[in-house]
Amino acid sequence: MKIKAGIIGATGYAGAELVRLLLSHKEVEIKWLGSKSYVGQQYASVYQNFFQLIDDKCMDEQIEQLAEQVDVIFMATPQGLCSSLINEHILSKVKIIDLSADFRLKDVTVYEKWYKIKHQSPEFLEESVYGLCELYGEKIKSARLVANPGCYTTCSILSCYPLVKEGIIQPETLIIDAKSGTSGAGRGAKTDNLYCEVNENIKAYGVGTHRHTPEIEAYLGEACQKQLTISFTPHLVPMNRGILITAYASLQKQVTQQEVRDIYQKYYQDKNFIRILDPGICPQTKWVEGSNYVDINTIIDPRTNRIIIMGALDNLVKGAAGQAIQNMNLMFGLPESEGLTYAPLFP
Amino acid sequence: MKIKAGIIGATGYAGAELVRLLLSHKEVEIKWLGSKSYVGQQYASVYQNFFQLIDDKCMDEQIEQLAEQVDVIFMATPQGLCSSLINEHILSKVKIIDLSADFRLKDVTVYEKWYKIKHQSPEFLEESVYGLCELYGEKIKSARLVANPGCYTTCSILSCYPLVKEGIIQPETLIIDAKSGTSGAGRGAKTDNLYCEVNENIKAYGVGTHRHTPEIEAYLGEACQKQLTISFTPHLVPMNRGILITAYASLQKQVTQQEVRDIYQKYYQDKNFIRILDPGICPQTKWVEGSNYVDINTIIDPRTNRIIIMGALDNLVKGAAGQAIQNMNLMFGLPESEGLTYAPLFP
Amino acid sequence: MKIKAGIIGATGYAGAELVRLLLSHKEVEIKWLGSKSYVGQQYASVYQNFFQLIDDKCMDEQIEQLAEQVDVIFMATPQGLCSSLINEHILSKVKIIDLSADFRLKDVTVYEKWYKIKHQSPEFLEESVYGLCELYGEKIKSARLVANPGCYTTCSILSCYPLVKEGIIQPETLIIDAKSGTSGAGRGAKTDNLYCEVNENIKAYGVGTHRHTPEIEAYLGEACQKQLTISFTPHLVPMNRGILITAYASLQKQVTQQEVRDIYQKYYQDKNFIRILDPGICPQTKWVEGSNYVDINTIIDPRTNRIIIMGALDNLVKGAAGQAIQNMNLMFGLPESEGLTYAPLFP
Amino acid sequence: MKIKAGIIGATGYAGAELVRLLLSHKEVEIKWLGSKSYVGQQYASVYQNFFQLIDDKCMDEQIEQLAEQVDVIFMATPQGLCSSLINEHILSKVKIIDLSADFRLKDVTVYEKWYKIKHQSPEFLEESVYGLCELYGEKIKSARLVANPGCYTTCSILSCYPLVKEGIIQPETLIIDAKSGTSGAGRGAKTDNLYCEVNENIKAYGVGTHRHTPEIEAYLGEACQKQLTISFTPHLVPMNRGILITAYASLQKQVTQQEVRDIYQKYYQDKNFIRILDPGICPQTKWVEGSNYVDINTIIDPRTNRIIIMGALDNLVKGAAGQAIQNMNLMFGLPESEGLTYAPLFP
Repeated sequence: MKIKAGIIGATGYAGAELVRLLLSHKEVEIKWLGSKSYVGQQYASVYQNFFQLIDDKCMDEQIEQLAEQVDVIFMATPQGLCSSLINEHILSKVKIIDLSADFRLKDVTVYEKWYKIKHQSPEFLEESVYGLCELYGEKIKSARLVANPGCYTTCSILSCYPLVKEGIIQPETLIIDAKSGTSGAGRGAKTDNLYCEVNENIKAYGVGTHRHTPEIEAYLGEACQKQLTISFTPHLVPMNRGILITAYASLQKQVTQQEVRDIYQKYYQDKNFIRILDPGICPQTKWVEGSNYVDINTIIDPRTNRIIIMGALDNLVKGAAGQAIQNMNLMFGLPESEGLTYAPLFP
Repeated sequence: MKIKAGIIGATGYAGAELVRLLLSHKEVEIKWLGSKSYVGQQYASVYQNFFQLIDDKCMDEQIEQLAEQVDVIFMATPQGLCSSLINEHILSKVKIIDLSADFRLKDVTVYEKWYKIKHQSPEFLEESVYGLCELYGEKIKSARLVANPGCYTTCSILSCYPLVKEGIIQPETLIIDAKSGTSGAGRGAKTDNLYCEVNENIKAYGVGTHRHTPEIEAYLGEACQKQLTISFTPHLVPMNRGILITAYASLQKQVTQQEVRDIYQKYYQDKNFIRILDPGICPQTKWVEGSNYVDINTIIDPRTNRIIIMGALDNLVKGAAGQAIQNMNLMFGLPESEGLTYAPLFP
Repeated sequence: MKIKAGIIGATGYAGAELVRLLLSHKEVEIKWLGSKSYVGQQYASVYQNFFQLIDDKCMDEQIEQLAEQVDVIFMATPQGLCSSLINEHILSKVKIIDLSADFRLKDVTVYEKWYKIKHQSPEFLEESVYGLCELYGEKIKSARLVANPGCYTTCSILSCYPLVKEGIIQPETLIIDAKSGTSGAGRGAKTDNLYCEVNENIKAYGVGTHRHTPEIEAYLGEACQKQLTISFTPHLVPMNRGILITAYASLQKQVTQQEVRDIYQKYYQDKNFIRILDPGICPQTKWVEGSNYVDINTIIDPRTNRIIIMGALDNLVKGAAGQAIQNMNLMFGLPESEGLTYAPLFP
Repeated sequence: MKIKAGIIGATGYAGAELVRLLLSHKEVEIKWLGSKSYVGQQYASVYQNFFQLIDDKCMDEQIEQLAEQVDVIFMATPQGLCSSLINEHILSKVKIIDLSADFRLKDVTVYEKWYKIKHQSPEFLEESVYGLCELYGEKIKSARLVANPGCYTTCSILSCYPLVKEGIIQPETLIIDAKSGTSGAGRGAKTDNLYCEVNENIKAYGVGTHRHTPEIEAYLGEACQKQLTISFTPHLVPMNRGILITAYASLQKQVTQQEVRDIYQKYYQDKNFIRILDPGICPQTKWVEGSNYVDINTIIDPRTNRIIIMGALDNLVKGAAGQAIQNMNLMFGLPESEGLTYAPLFP
């Protein structure tokens, strides 16, 4: 008996990636492809890669009706939608995996400050579980509502967590310089995301104000038991997929490269999707493309007494759809890596 | 009991794609990763996407030794190697799927003229089977030696075959203008294939002399029972993967768009990997990326009495490694699409 | 005394390229940057490459007012606008170089059929001069109204003209397969032109129906004194700039490669911007990027008795703004190459 | 009477960019195109963009002979060559602009440590002038030997200098995260720089060890009168040209955004090629492509008490050839911007 899944927001890039991955997931059946903009159109006419693989039409986004028909709903929608639709009745019927930011931040004032919208169902904030599987796997297993982490956030937290948690770095010195492929900007038709504007170009954006910042601060702050403030700067890179973060922090204590490796092993050795690269090897986004892996490595710079932490993932997979499925696997008692074991695509 | 597979030339792009696809093929176990240039090195250090997925080192390319250990050998090597290594003893022990050109052309003089090397084992030319699965599937099933078609060739023949075979077009008017991603040029370190030379650039190459030409002529000529001479011009496009062919031919008889569609249906309706797109939709290479699909469509231009035939595939999958696995499936009695059913990656 | 120039449509890509080139033209002063969408905004805030180089704001597009203030107006606007604005009063005051299609086709019925709009001032069709400088230079010198050719058209006509004119090829066999960078699609915010949709992708579009087709047919038809019908297929390539055409035609008579070269020399040896490449060298778009050059070469394929003709140019320069300035130079008695002599940018 | 210029290393990307820019420089005549690898070949066959623009063949690299014939020699060669060739006799005859690292670092032990080669003419280190025109313009005017700064260095120093010099930031907190286009890696045929390896990919490299680090430290250290140690991490970005640096530093004192702007104005208001962007606008490499401009801006992040400094330039122009010409202009008493005033190319 397969898990019946519905997707709201199936025609965005993250939604389409959910579809791609779920199609090969042997325990899941996609029952509902919701899309506000394309109701009634063939889904495969919106994403022709699915031609002859999917016959369904896009459905509207009636969550009540959907909750009757499926076991899990993925919300691949803009902030504010999930929190405005959700209620106890729905949650009693169906598990929700929200790819938006609505339930990522436990502190509603922080959410409302950074997202500049009023939270519509703060009563579920406590119940919701932050879906960073490698850190909150146990809680996720019994959750009804999972907040799937942001793409930058997943890469940043997983890359830095062990060093923050173990007190190896001075957390307030943490600076994260992040580089993202353009699919992170979504499929909306905006001049800034046109081919000719992005190609042969690189820029920072949202300097000091990007909304993934408080999310990183919250969970790394939890790790070091501090109110944490960090620098986070995203950049737009001319490529479709991939996030690379390069993080800088001052060492709290003297450590060797091997000690650092041991710490990462301690946290991640049994984690399927985290790969600590060999000494001296810098992560490259191409090495994880299309896969759910996060590649991480660190280099201690004795000249500056800093450690440089690098992490790479595919923003649409481990940064969105893949992680959502990893969460689903945990929530339904499946092996965590079910449907997610494909090797990265290179070149 | 899994099929044991060896790859000679595993560190080229086609070889690495074989590895990627075979890793997810549940009936196959990779036993031997041969590579002349990297003997003794960790395979995953040459292709870091396989880090922690493959622990094996690169082996030398001793085909005799390899034939004792595996059930099938994939030769992802330059022209001339397979024909120089093969013999009856080897073929009696192991099935060979040759991704090079050595056994694609039945006429040894044509081979020697276009490839400018002497064929080392013409005695196997008759036995060898041309591995274009959709057309020669029955013969492939019992073959010991399969000549896996070229990437341009696969796209060109599959796209044009029904119209040639049915006498819809005048075959001698056929002009194929092909566009390929850069992975087709291989991983050799050449100035012409540097990022800065390929990026923001497009060019034709091998005009009138590309070696896939006689291969296309041979098999389309077989379809129309003629000695065929066509125009074929490849172009290098700034993208990693993908081949698009745009072919032009004068109509032999008056046909409607629907009649043409019916002909394609007749040949391909039960073929897993050929998708005849809806009327008016032009194939795009991105829609087949990472998959074994070939997307085909045609448009009749009544003004010129020509038909424009378009086909798209991923040169490393259906144009190389995917088709090789499709051949293997047929040769070992597996379902033809085993291990090849993944949806294309978009974007 | 400098020529005073106004641009209507200055915030499209072609308009911005006009601005870039005119800024370095020592005989011209830009007086008016018209833009329907950005009236009142700093031009340099729309194109930040001009920051501190241009202080002007975008003006509305009042052609009457503009005609009082300038010597030449460049219309870098959608089809239909120029023909709706122009009149004898304006033409008596100012020279017009129209980068749209309005005056390219002398036959108004052909225009209305392909563009599907009614022509608003057919009375100027006879007077207007087709601004393909290498062929119509003498007429352009005394023109009041010049129709700047399309980008595909310029590349196609210049590449094929000598062979058509001299009866070397059978003109009705001509097939032009064209490949264009994405700036040709303009700066409008459309999903199809998003980075993620164009990158790592190639496709044909407008098959059998592209509007540059009748323009090519008209002027090549004039060359061979025939009503000409050809095949023309454009493709979208993942690069910002550049057009490459690969054209195929059957030879009308036996010619040697040297005879063909001599014919091209006859037509183009004194043309500044046409470069007939050395034998065997295929044009590449990167070699003309940012410049007004057209690189052309041909290869005779004795196997098929066809000749393959290749041409490359920068669609925004020789295909739009550069040619417009070349026209202006001719119209104002300046050296044809004034302000256009820069070497291409590589890489 | 034009300045006669020779280039040693004319067939690298920086050398070719020198050629491109000098061709349009009305006071200069190129007399010698030296290239070890291509001696005797037509220069325009190595860089076909110069076809019909340059008839010269590549010459060998005999500096003694060259010094007799020209007024200035540009050395666009690997480290170690210039210092091994130079002597008093040569310097007495010709001005040298060295684009390599040989004379950038005044401290020979630092040079030998980072470059791992012995310096062949340390006796000229004191005399040589660091060719960062905006800071050392006066000294450059009378120099015989100019050390043209590195590409990363130019961008880093110019972006950060005013804040370091004025004590606004704590210099030892400075972290520079740099992103470069691939032309910075040169035209050598290396697997790592192949199209398929760079495209759709981003990575850090040389973490903690990149050779531009001590150069940045030396000149920013001079500004703050300290032995400075900073973090510098370069990244390879899939684009041909462009460097973006994103730098982070803790504020030394409370300043407003306006005060910071005033400081930049103080240093750069009369500098032709430095553009301090409007408040809130982040530099983009595309906005300076093909030009000699450096775009700079800063954003104060009150949450972290850090300032984020961003700078963008074209690595082949202001980061190499353009700056070399700017140096030449100063050395020969020409206007600093002669031959360098072109607007950036967009898109």
